Amino acid sequence: MLIGRVIGEVIASHKHESYEGLSVMLVQPLELDGSPRGVPMVAVDAVGAGTGQLVLFAPEGYCAMTAVNRLQTPIDTAILGIVDHLDLRLDLLTK
Amino acid sequence: MLIGRVIGEVIASHKHESYEGLSVMLVQPLELDGSPRGVPMVAVDAVGAGTGQLVLFAPEGYCAMTAVNRLQTPIDTAILGIVDHLDLRLDLLTK
Amino acid sequence: MLIGRVIGEVIASHKHESYEGLSVMLVQPLELDGSPRGVPMVAVDAVGAGTGQLVLFAPEGYCAMTAVNRLQTPIDTAILGIVDHLDLRLDLLTK
Amino acid sequence: MLIGRVIGEVIASHKHESYEGLSVMLVQPLELDGSPRGVPMVAVDAVGAGTGQLVLFAPEGYCAMTAVNRLQTPIDTAILGIVDHLDLRLDLLTK
Amino acid sequence: MLIGRVIGEVIASHKHESYEGLSVMLVQPLELDGSPRGVPMVAVDAVGAGTGQLVLFAPEGYCAMTAVNRLQTPIDTAILGIVDHLDLRLDLLTK
Repeated sequence: MLIGRVIGEVIASHKHESYEGLSVMLVQPLELDGSPRGVPMVAVDAVGAGTGQLVLFAPEGYCAMTAVNRLQTPIDTAILGIVDHLDLRLDLLTK
Repeated sequence: MLIGRVIGEVIASHKHESYEGLSVMLVQPLELDGSPRGVPMVAVDAVGAGTGQLVLFAPEGYCAMTAVNRLQTPIDTAILGIVDHLDLRLDLLTK
Repeated sequence: MLIGRVIGEVIASHKHESYEGLSVMLVQPLELDGSPRGVPMVAVDAVGAGTGQLVLFAPEGYCAMTAVNRLQTPIDTAILGIVDHLDLRLDLLTK
Repeated sequence: MLIGRVIGEVIASHKHESYEGLSVMLVQPLELDGSPRGVPMVAVDAVGAGTGQLVLFAPEGYCAMTAVNRLQTPIDTAILGIVDHLDLRLDLLTK
Repeated sequence: MLIGRVIGEVIASHKHESYEGLSVMLVQPLELDGSPRGVPMVAVDAVGAGTGQLVLFAPEGYCAMTAVNRLQTPIDTAILGIVDHLDLRLDLLTK
C-alpha cells in the first residue's frame, strides 16, 4: 500500500457498466515527508474519501476489487483508508 | 488505472485463438497535463474506443480479463472507459 | 502486453516438471520504432513463434498460464501472437 | 520477497472495516549491505514484528492476503518473517 | 521469468509457519552477458538449486506459489529451473 493525497476526480460518462456508483479519484502518492512520490494515479474510492484528504491506497487489482467488494468489476487501484498520522522513527532509516 | 490516448492498433493475423473478436490497441499513457508518460502500451479494448480518444485503462491481467468478460483469454491490459475530462486541484499537489 | 522480438532460447535440462513440452524463449521488448526497450525477458511460447519473429507477449503470471492452458504450471510471461504490423498514428503522441 | 526494516506505523482511524485487528507498518526496503533501497512501503504485519526489526516482506496482494489468512481483506504487502541474518557469498555477484 | 545466480540464503528463525521445509535464497538477476541486472531478490527454491548456480526464476506470487505447490503459503518469487546455457542470437537485438 502507499500513502497519497486525493487531488481530483476522473469524469468519464462512457465507461465499463460495472463501474456504476463508484467514484474514480486522482491520487498523488507521497513520500513520508509529504512531498510527491512519482506521478498521480487513478483509484476507485472504497471509504468515502474526498479531494484534499490523506489516504492509504493499494495499486493492485485483486486487492482493489476486494476493497469495493466487486470481484467482477475491472479495478486495479483502490483507496482503503483515511490516514490520521504516521508514527515514524526516521532514525531507523540509516541503521 | 491510468489515463492515456489511443494512438493505433496492432495487426496480428496469427494470435491466441481466444482473441477472436477483440481489438488490440496501442495506448500512450499521459501525464495529467496531457504530455506523454513513459512509452506506449498494448491494450485490449473493452468499451469501443477509437484511435485518438482519451481513455481510462488498466495494466493488470485479472482486471483486464474481467473487463472483457473473458477469464480464459490471456490479456494483461484493457481499456475501461472514455474520459470526458479531469476535475483536478493541482494546488493540492505540493501541500 | 508488449511488442518484442524473439532472440533466442533458454536451455535448462533441470526444470520444474510441469514445463515438459514448453519452449522457453528470450524476447527483446521493442519500442514502436523497433529499437530495444529495456532488457530481454524470458517467456514461454504459446503460439509457435521462432527466433527472429516479431511477437505480442504478456509479462504477467495468470495471463501467461492461461495462454498455454496450464494453470498448474508456474509461468509469468508468455508469447501470445505473431505481429504482422502496427497501424500507428504517431502524430497523436504529442497531442 | 524483499528484506527491510520496520520504521514505524500508520495510524488510520477511518479504514476498510476488514482491517480490524491488523497492524499497518512502514517498512524501509534494504540492500544486502543494510543501506536503504528505494523508498519506504506500507505493509500489514503477519508475524508480530516491531519497529526496528529486520524483516522479510512481500509486496504482492494475493501473497499478502494469504499471509494474514484474510482473502477478503484488501492488502497488497505483508511482513512474513523476522530475519536473523543473511548467509551470503558476495564474490558470486560478479562471476 | 528472469535469469539469475543464487548468491546466498536468508536465515529467519521466526517466519510464517507455512514456510516450514522451504529454502529462502538470495538471487542476483543477470543480464544475458552475465553481468548483474539490478539488485538481488529473495526467492523460495522449487527445484533444489544451490548457491553459485545459474537459475530461471519468476518474481510473481501466484506463479511462485504454484511452483512449490503451496497455494496457501505467502510466496512471491520462486526458482523454477537450473539453466544449462542460453541459445542466443545477439545480432537480432538491433534489427
